[in-house]
Amino acid sequence: MTAPSPFVVGERPGFTPQVGRLVVMLEYARRTTLRTVAGLAPAELDHLHDAESNSIGALLAHVAGIEVAYQRSTFDGRGLTPADEARWGAALALGSRARTEIRGEPLEHYLDLLSEVRADTLRELARRDDAWLEETTPFWGGELANNHFKWFHVLEDEINHRGQMRWLRKRLARA
Amino acid sequence: MTAPSPFVVGERPGFTPQVGRLVVMLEYARRTTLRTVAGLAPAELDHLHDAESNSIGALLAHVAGIEVAYQRSTFDGRGLTPADEARWGAALALGSRARTEIRGEPLEHYLDLLSEVRADTLRELARRDDAWLEETTPFWGGELANNHFKWFHVLEDEINHRGQMRWLRKRLARA
Repeated sequence: MTAPSPFVVGERPGFTPQVGRLVVMLEYARRTTLRTVAGLAPAELDHLHDAESNSIGALLAHVAGIEVAYQRSTFDGRGLTPADEARWGAALALGSRARTEIRGEPLEHYLDLLSEVRADTLRELARRDDAWLEETTPFWGGELANNHFKWFHVLEDEINHRGQMRWLRKRLARA
Repeated sequence: MTAPSPFVVGERPGFTPQVGRLVVMLEYARRTTLRTVAGLAPAELDHLHDAESNSIGALLAHVAGIEVAYQRSTFDGRGLTPADEARWGAALALGSRARTEIRGEPLEHYLDLLSEVRADTLRELARRDDAWLEETTPFWGGELANNHFKWFHVLEDEINHRGQMRWLRKRLARA
């Protein structure tokens, strides 16, 4: 059996129908993130375009951190643990804290974070079903959000930052 | 009946089940784009952060232009007409052509473009169904893509550029 095209939003083995479609979108977003940062050196991952910029490395850590936060929220029904805060706090905060704390790592460090977190996501999504995607809790501004939206938001936040990473990467050569 | 929460990915009246979920994602992406640019003056929409930047106005026109291109591709099975090229060519190209041709317009101009194009999209999507979303054609690199993916890509491209608009807007005050 050949692998399905990454450009077909549809069912995927091991996932229920809606969950499979969501997984295709999550994986496509990740594919484009990985292509955006391929080959970057540590100095490029740390580079700050201006005094208020996030580095590409910090944005990659943020992408992984957001995914962890939504794992906790949707799979466990709780916020970050103190251990999560210690590991992901700077990545989630971005800004000055990330500029200080997230530096000096090679690309593999960030790729390992992303793949470790994604493996957890896929394993947990495989245990859930379309009915779970529909479950709602109060969310932004007290409006209801379902798990489907929350995981769409995870990939949507990744794409938002990937757009910024592309912009920043184009300007690295001139830095 | 109250309006459904914008944070619930689910069925929507007037659309088949999968199309409805896609429409929720398209509309959420648009909502965040509109919030990103709310209140910008013409000079801010035209501002170029550096010599290679796209203006926020050009990025807004690009978002509308991409949506037109995928209307033609998925609804009509063809590319842009000469009239489309005349209207949307600079927006689709971005870069130097957009820096020259897309200028001097108020925010309402861009909002009108976006809402005109979106109305066409929603009207056409309402006429189609989940089976249509699954239809495939050869796409990037000869891999198959279905209509569901192509419309996901439309919103994904919008979110990518919204990330850039947010970055650019934060720096307008210092320009």
